[in-house]
Amino acid sequence: MRMVDIIEKKRDGFALSTEEIRFFIREYTAGHIPDYQASALLMAIYFRGMDERERRDLTLAMVESGDRVDLSRIGGIKVDKHSTGGVGDTTTLILGPLVASVGVPVAKMSGRGLGHTGGTIDKLESIPGFHVEIANEEFIRLVNENQIAVVGQSGNLTPADKKLYALRDVTGTVESIPLIASSIMSKKIAAGADAIVLDVKTGSGAFMKSLDDARLLAKAMVDIGNRLGRKTMAVISDMSQPLGYAVGNALEVKEAIETLKGHGPEDLTELCLTLGSQMVCLAQKAATPEEARNILQEAIASGKALEKMKTFVQAQGGDVRVIEDPERLPKAKYQTALKAEKAGWVEAIVAEKIGHAAMLLGAGRTTKDSAIDLSVGIVLHKKVGDRVEKGEPLLTVHANREDIREVLRLLEENIRIAETPVTPPPLIYEIIS
Amino acid sequence: MRMVDIIEKKRDGFALSTEEIRFFIREYTAGHIPDYQASALLMAIYFRGMDERERRDLTLAMVESGDRVDLSRIGGIKVDKHSTGGVGDTTTLILGPLVASVGVPVAKMSGRGLGHTGGTIDKLESIPGFHVEIANEEFIRLVNENQIAVVGQSGNLTPADKKLYALRDVTGTVESIPLIASSIMSKKIAAGADAIVLDVKTGSGAFMKSLDDARLLAKAMVDIGNRLGRKTMAVISDMSQPLGYAVGNALEVKEAIETLKGHGPEDLTELCLTLGSQMVCLAQKAATPEEARNILQEAIASGKALEKMKTFVQAQGGDVRVIEDPERLPKAKYQTALKAEKAGWVEAIVAEKIGHAAMLLGAGRTTKDSAIDLSVGIVLHKKVGDRVEKGEPLLTVHANREDIREVLRLLEENIRIAETPVTPPPLIYEIIS
Repeated sequence: MRMVDIIEKKRDGFALSTEEIRFFIREYTAGHIPDYQASALLMAIYFRGMDERERRDLTLAMVESGDRVDLSRIGGIKVDKHSTGGVGDTTTLILGPLVASVGVPVAKMSGRGLGHTGGTIDKLESIPGFHVEIANEEFIRLVNENQIAVVGQSGNLTPADKKLYALRDVTGTVESIPLIASSIMSKKIAAGADAIVLDVKTGSGAFMKSLDDARLLAKAMVDIGNRLGRKTMAVISDMSQPLGYAVGNALEVKEAIETLKGHGPEDLTELCLTLGSQMVCLAQKAATPEEARNILQEAIASGKALEKMKTFVQAQGGDVRVIEDPERLPKAKYQTALKAEKAGWVEAIVAEKIGHAAMLLGAGRTTKDSAIDLSVGIVLHKKVGDRVEKGEPLLTVHANREDIREVLRLLEENIRIAETPVTPPPLIYEIIS
Repeated sequence: MRMVDIIEKKRDGFALSTEEIRFFIREYTAGHIPDYQASALLMAIYFRGMDERERRDLTLAMVESGDRVDLSRIGGIKVDKHSTGGVGDTTTLILGPLVASVGVPVAKMSGRGLGHTGGTIDKLESIPGFHVEIANEEFIRLVNENQIAVVGQSGNLTPADKKLYALRDVTGTVESIPLIASSIMSKKIAAGADAIVLDVKTGSGAFMKSLDDARLLAKAMVDIGNRLGRKTMAVISDMSQPLGYAVGNALEVKEAIETLKGHGPEDLTELCLTLGSQMVCLAQKAATPEEARNILQEAIASGKALEKMKTFVQAQGGDVRVIEDPERLPKAKYQTALKAEKAGWVEAIVAEKIGHAAMLLGAGRTTKDSAIDLSVGIVLHKKVGDRVEKGEPLLTVHANREDIREVLRLLEENIRIAETPVTPPPLIYEIIS
């Protein structure tokens, strides 16, 4: 088998065979196929696409390129959740304890963030003492005992995907649905989940700017998961404005705690209930999404969900007092309100730019090795559709430096106020199973 | 300027700016842009194409990546000829002395062959003593004195093209009209010609299998040449069957000599007169192609062209006796005729496969460093459209080994005989200027 023949076959619009896909992934991971041939193939895939069988083959080949996490010693159906990424997306922090509190085992392997704001691990580490360096035995024991544990990525999971992702990033081949779908699904499958709930974002702050593309990606991933033996569902949700009010690590932890207490932002709460219902159904802890939703609402109202958060934080060395008193989380030195220049209705809060502003404050990483400031960020006071009066604060910037003119200018440019009432965008577009 | 932005721009169907193309070629040649980004861009160009301005910019940037040959001390308009490559194509060996004999200066830089059969230099080296290692001063003196000299490629001409060509070869990005056109034209322009005649082949033995593609390539190259100040014309000629009768280095030299004597194959003679007429016109030695053709026919009939061949061979150290007596050329040990299995009319002689058979005999190189047997090859006795009787020889194989069953089988499979008369394909499809 010659790589150049595989490239030409895809270039000419033919489907690659299972053997050809396996050959490519195996030999590329082993360093026997050079990057310049891989990138030519990736660009040909960008233009020609891959059919469903090819996508499954690619996913499986990437899973098989490295280790697989073995969760078999954890009882019950392990359900994982994945979001395609957005601004102010705190759902994992809420969903973990929430579904664990109703008996769904959450054995989560998480990463650190790049861009926008931090990842789940960064956020959790803003709780003093919290750590994710847990040995495998301990991780499994914690999940069996508490239904929840979060561990940092370890081992050699999907090395093919890591290598390909780095190459795609510098060769203009990121935005390809078969490549995105197989990348995400290979990681989820290698991480050992029995079932997967996907939160596919659409809108300015998301990877998929259009609903059509989000739908194609969601369908591609659901097909891969189900056909590879993992019950998979996808929710397409809005990311034209940030989710909830908080953007920034400690600020989002605080918002997650408020949500578990039942006082969270409406959209964040609703998305967590929607995703959580799917997880509870897949874990067979409820027969219908409606039943699952009732169980989850009851877990919040009764304090069971918050109690699970405490157990979880304590088990991983975190200062459990922050749950009762979130003021103990790291705090930025300066709070500056951005005030509305005119009265009206909020028409747009451009998620991508709000995320960029948070990054400029230090909440996100520009490169893999850059330091991150857990305390800084932005708290919105208004969402799209809200009425605002002249001089009323639109948001508060939490910063650790005095001069934030650049950040304020960026924020100001990306919050638009209309003179007539505005209908807010839908939060959930579609559920695909 | 970032390479990834250039890749994405082309990927999304936009034209690259002059500055972007220059940046890519300059930095890639300097080794500052990695192969994996270059190959992704090449594949994007394969799918999206390049407009006329981009093709000119790419050609010029490749010319500027290295040295340029200075032919200014040679009097007259220097006309170069380039063929896109075919099987049994001996035109350069004939055209050089032919047009030189009527006063057109031929200052030819030639290469060795890869694949099919040898290049012009390989063929010339089958004349005992002939050599192409000539210093620059001597080369210019010879052209001024004799109107003709052939030199091996030297200096650092179009290094960008060399690097890109090697990359295209292994990344499925060879068959792209803008890339082929700019590759050929950059080499011709760097080699110093004032005017260029292109012989674009079409058919099974050619790079461009369809006439439409050949026409697009010819037009692309003529546009580049003319817009960069080199009068350029193109002839589209047939390569569905080999040109002339001989395929193989010494065998083709013999055929070239016969043609200069006026006894060459009809198709080879006709193509040389067509291409030669264009060259004579571009060199302003005739006002019309008809006048040029008369001049060239007269040069053959009078023996002037053959005389020029002798002068040329002698000046570069070759044994001039082979011109009068081509039997002095290297000869293969074994001659084997392939006979017709049935009577009929020759329907097809698949050029590509005949070339492959010659290569199996040792007439061509499989890799850049493989040795080549100048004496072996194939001599056809029939062409498409000819009547053939059962048992009549279709061709003779000239080999230096006894067991040529594999070669004979390949040849047999690729000469088809029909039961009804066959119209031969046209030799010249179109002239583009």
